[in-house]
Amino acid sequence: MNNRQPINQYMNEICDRLDSELTNLFPPSWKVPETLHKSMSYSLMAGGKRMRPLLVIAACEAGGGSRDAAIPVACAVEMVHTYSLVHDDLPAMDDDDYRRGKPTNHKVFGEASAILAGDALLTHAFYSIIQASRQFGVPAERVLSIVEDLAEYAGPRGMVGGQVADMEGEQGLTTLEQLEYIHLHKTSDLIMFSLMAGGHIAGCTEAQIESLRIFGHHIGLAFQIQDDILDLVGDESKLGKPVQSDVKQEKVTYPYFIGLDPSRREVERLTAEAKRVITEGNFNDPSRLLEIADFLMARDH
Amino acid sequence: MNNRQPINQYMNEICDRLDSELTNLFPPSWKVPETLHKSMSYSLMAGGKRMRPLLVIAACEAGGGSRDAAIPVACAVEMVHTYSLVHDDLPAMDDDDYRRGKPTNHKVFGEASAILAGDALLTHAFYSIIQASRQFGVPAERVLSIVEDLAEYAGPRGMVGGQVADMEGEQGLTTLEQLEYIHLHKTSDLIMFSLMAGGHIAGCTEAQIESLRIFGHHIGLAFQIQDDILDLVGDESKLGKPVQSDVKQEKVTYPYFIGLDPSRREVERLTAEAKRVITEGNFNDPSRLLEIADFLMARDH
Repeated sequence: MNNRQPINQYMNEICDRLDSELTNLFPPSWKVPETLHKSMSYSLMAGGKRMRPLLVIAACEAGGGSRDAAIPVACAVEMVHTYSLVHDDLPAMDDDDYRRGKPTNHKVFGEASAILAGDALLTHAFYSIIQASRQFGVPAERVLSIVEDLAEYAGPRGMVGGQVADMEGEQGLTTLEQLEYIHLHKTSDLIMFSLMAGGHIAGCTEAQIESLRIFGHHIGLAFQIQDDILDLVGDESKLGKPVQSDVKQEKVTYPYFIGLDPSRREVERLTAEAKRVITEGNFNDPSRLLEIADFLMARDH
Repeated sequence: MNNRQPINQYMNEICDRLDSELTNLFPPSWKVPETLHKSMSYSLMAGGKRMRPLLVIAACEAGGGSRDAAIPVACAVEMVHTYSLVHDDLPAMDDDDYRRGKPTNHKVFGEASAILAGDALLTHAFYSIIQASRQFGVPAERVLSIVEDLAEYAGPRGMVGGQVADMEGEQGLTTLEQLEYIHLHKTSDLIMFSLMAGGHIAGCTEAQIESLRIFGHHIGLAFQIQDDILDLVGDESKLGKPVQSDVKQEKVTYPYFIGLDPSRREVERLTAEAKRVITEGNFNDPSRLLEIADFLMARDH
């Protein structure tokens, strides 16, 4: 616990930086239809934890890269995460009325606007990534790898595939393997991308980028299991959604398969393994990544 | 008319090439949920005219580039075009039951699946673009420009912005300028991108790429006005949708503002101006682009 205060400050600093950078990306003068501008900003600024941008920046800094150079990709991954939430919340999908304690995008702006705001956020994320090269001179080859990875990890073989499997799973999920496939692609894929992208910006070796991928795979799964646990035993005001909402929707979760305490032990095991891989990865300064892994395991919302 | 037969053969050859390339992109062994695979393929292979891929390839060849190197971007722009149709047809948007004479994606696979298939097609388009570098050695800097242009012309300031304006326009479009804004962004933006991308693959000069952009702007607007005209006077069996469907939906079209014959003259004016810009653009061989402009003006579906 003795390093939680510093990591909290580090995380808050990055969260504040992201909020201002995302605001600057969409100035009032931005030439798009006003309703689109408003609905994109509404969900982007709805008070997310900015965990994925944090991972981009922490991985970049662990590899000796500059925070400024990581910002365009950090903004991009938050846009992709936000688009996925806006579309997941739609009536045709999870049909959620609240997200982070606020009415969901389609509740405020309507379904058509929510679909298009999601499409716009996803598309503009790729524009933002290119700015790492345009504004900070990240070599084109590295930026190409980041674009390729995002299209892979957020696309049909990645996050979207996980969402489809989750939709189908609601008609009856029968094995832990099916649940892990959904968790891996719905959650871990974008976390893995964030860490690998930070490594690319810093110019990490392929071996280091593979270590970042494995770290992301493990903390991503641990994060999702922790979500399942918190949804069963968490504090509504902190979660921003009704506790046991998944249970009400008869969603099958990790504790459902292996029980609550074994789920907690699995979070600990995955976190320890993630930290080991990073510790042995020859990074300039892995400390922030290690602290983030501990922080995520200990979070209560 | 004496050059329509050759251009028809050229267009059919490219259309067939695209069909096989798109099929190869999604082999049965492709590791994605089966329903996602099927719904992506259903709309991609629903018999589009492949006009945007044709423009990528024709622009690349006009600039002296190879057709093979243009294929990944040609496939990408067709994926983006297809995603936009799948989302536009959704009940929350235009609520269309038929597209190209076939049931729309959500009619066959359901709304959730259609939303996710669109998201997957848009994301995977960026993956395909990167393959121009990976498979054909197109320099990374040029591929970055293509990614940046696609994100710009298909994003909030481009095609998605045009779709939002179109949605809002249905509550009452009052000026020709509003209609032209919608046409420009809903239709011309992706056509401009296709031509510029072909130019980037061929290594065209900035001046040539600007000529391709202007050519795309003009034939894109002419194409949309022609669509409005054909929707009023066209042949249902050729259009694949009921004639005057826009009128039934009380959609305001170009002929509505300036009349049918002036609309026809505007198509001719824009086509002539588009051809002039290309003729003066110092391309290796502009003939296919000029023939395509004439073909589009003369089309009856």
